[in-house]
Amino acid sequence: MRTQVAIIGGGPSGLLLSQLLHRKGIDTIVLERKTRDYVLGRIRAGILETGFVDLMREAGVSERMDKESFVHDGTVIAFGNEQFQVNFTEHTGTPVVVYGQTEVTRDLYDAREAMDGKIVFNVENVEIHDADSDAPYVTYSVDGREERIDCDFVAGCDGFHGVSRQTIPLSVRKEYEKVYPFGWLGVLSETPPVHDELIYANSDRGFALCSMRNANLSRYYIQCSLSDDVEDWTDQMFWNELKRRIPEEAAEKLVTGPSIEKSIAPLRSFVTEPMRWGRLFLCGDAAHIVPPTGAKGLNTAASDIHYLYHGLLQYFEEGDSEGIDRYSEKALARIWKAERFSWWMTNLLHRFPDQTEFDIKMQLADLTFLRDNREAQSVLAQNYVGLPY
Amino acid sequence: MRTQVAIIGGGPSGLLLSQLLHRKGIDTIVLERKTRDYVLGRIRAGILETGFVDLMREAGVSERMDKESFVHDGTVIAFGNEQFQVNFTEHTGTPVVVYGQTEVTRDLYDAREAMDGKIVFNVENVEIHDADSDAPYVTYSVDGREERIDCDFVAGCDGFHGVSRQTIPLSVRKEYEKVYPFGWLGVLSETPPVHDELIYANSDRGFALCSMRNANLSRYYIQCSLSDDVEDWTDQMFWNELKRRIPEEAAEKLVTGPSIEKSIAPLRSFVTEPMRWGRLFLCGDAAHIVPPTGAKGLNTAASDIHYLYHGLLQYFEEGDSEGIDRYSEKALARIWKAERFSWWMTNLLHRFPDQTEFDIKMQLADLTFLRDNREAQSVLAQNYVGLPY
Repeated sequence: MRTQVAIIGGGPSGLLLSQLLHRKGIDTIVLERKTRDYVLGRIRAGILETGFVDLMREAGVSERMDKESFVHDGTVIAFGNEQFQVNFTEHTGTPVVVYGQTEVTRDLYDAREAMDGKIVFNVENVEIHDADSDAPYVTYSVDGREERIDCDFVAGCDGFHGVSRQTIPLSVRKEYEKVYPFGWLGVLSETPPVHDELIYANSDRGFALCSMRNANLSRYYIQCSLSDDVEDWTDQMFWNELKRRIPEEAAEKLVTGPSIEKSIAPLRSFVTEPMRWGRLFLCGDAAHIVPPTGAKGLNTAASDIHYLYHGLLQYFEEGDSEGIDRYSEKALARIWKAERFSWWMTNLLHRFPDQTEFDIKMQLADLTFLRDNREAQSVLAQNYVGLPY
Repeated sequence: MRTQVAIIGGGPSGLLLSQLLHRKGIDTIVLERKTRDYVLGRIRAGILETGFVDLMREAGVSERMDKESFVHDGTVIAFGNEQFQVNFTEHTGTPVVVYGQTEVTRDLYDAREAMDGKIVFNVENVEIHDADSDAPYVTYSVDGREERIDCDFVAGCDGFHGVSRQTIPLSVRKEYEKVYPFGWLGVLSETPPVHDELIYANSDRGFALCSMRNANLSRYYIQCSLSDDVEDWTDQMFWNELKRRIPEEAAEKLVTGPSIEKSIAPLRSFVTEPMRWGRLFLCGDAAHIVPPTGAKGLNTAASDIHYLYHGLLQYFEEGDSEGIDRYSEKALARIWKAERFSWWMTNLLHRFPDQTEFDIKMQLADLTFLRDNREAQSVLAQNYVGLPY
């Protein structure tokens, strides 16, 4: 087989890139290790930056999103029993859009199918060959058959554990990492959200986040120990602990109910450099991870797709390789800013095991300053809605 | 003897408070352990916030300062070979004033003498008694004589190692501290400053600061190890190291010369709570220490004097104790903000022994964001010129 861009990974990044390129007449094949249902079963965040929303529009996949999503003009920051709002729209002219990653992915699958996009599921043993030559190719097996795709470029959208990053030799690859000493215990429940915007809460007992998917689907998180077992957290224990970490005003209004999903996720900051090696481009989790505080995971992936899509267009339509030559540099410049923001917001809101009383006072001073200072709120708002591409 | 306010410590805080109160007809006695020459021999920073300058004007001690000081509209932040300016005046309408602490203290001594202010030097064995009663008194010895001052209030302006803070029982006193794992090696030299504003530099080799006292008196600092011995640093070694830590453009212009003072200072963040116990009020270093990054040391002392002065005026002139009753709360609210700023700026600019490569990337991302973002620069500027009282 031959294609112009072989895309490894059928999550939102790979699908979005495939969809965008297809609409410009550029041929792609998407390879996915799992099934469509498996991919859609993953629970992920759902706060979309405007840049991401624009990209979905450009990909012609915004119809349901525009109808069903919610617009958030701001977010609530709480500490102890105090809370204040940071208004995004007032500071930046731009809100964020609440639309679950699962829905984004579903819309992208539907769009790919409607255009007869080539997606191969259940692939195994994917290998990227000769990425540093002018003739890269990808091999894999599916249903016991060995397959080969010759291509001009390979987009590595296969996540943190995927083969794409591992394909870049260690001699040219440099990795930066921070693993946080706690996890997030998350619960999904069919209850109305406690508030019409997110509440990020710093409390003596640890971080909590009140989030949502829609008017009757709430998503709540509490910071937990990495040694906690999700089986040991009953729903009742979760709700009790959550109530103790959010302002009384919110706790009193909280509607509880059975969890329909409950899981513990670790928190990590990770970046690999460079994000391009020859004709292989890394996108999204394959190249970087952010802790979920600040909702940058999916948005940083979209940022990469933006730069790669425009670089590939420039190459195929104008024969100009400037965009793909500078892909790594451009993508990383924006990624490091999102890494900084997610790291800052994680540090601001969590309890750390080695934190001194002075350190906690610094968190409270940061929060108090943020509550009282217009420009500090603007800095948060600009980062939250997404810095310019 | 009897006075209205006994002031422990004849540094700039104690002198300024004494001078302000005296002009309103409130009687004070200042007790100082050392001699006037010793106090004036201390080398300290010299960046004054507008609030401090206003207080000097209100104390009638601004004549020489207004003539001889320099006004800085901004500061330079450097990282690697890059540099950018943060303009204070543009963001806040206010510059900072460069006038050495030694000069401030000298002017205050001259003003106290001109008004026949009571300052007792060389006092020993100072003790504060019955501070939690309505009749506090202070005892001390001088020239072998035992003395006693009865007073309405005691102002503890006697620094980190003074007796005032120790007078507050540990059962009501809570201390917060962070000791940084490096020091500042400072050199004073009779050379023209390398730049007309300060340069704060983050470099792979550690922090450096290019500062000044006047047009022919430069003050430079480099981050050093706490185990360094100042005797092991020749002038030549200092200049060589400084040049390697600042942008080439600055290094080429640097005029070197013999040091006239050279010393190593540790860096510490420290706050004690409360700052009032009965009729004893802590001011300045007696209650809090900041690392010198951001030049908040003298300015936080002035902030305390502002609140205490107005509280005492309110008490003596109107018989209203609201200002002194709320002294600790008001002073601490502003102190914690200055602590936050000094801690942030120290973290932003220094190399830490336990810093990972990810941590260093976060510093660079912070610096890059600050370089590119107007509101982030405004936040720095507002803090640097001093938040509102």
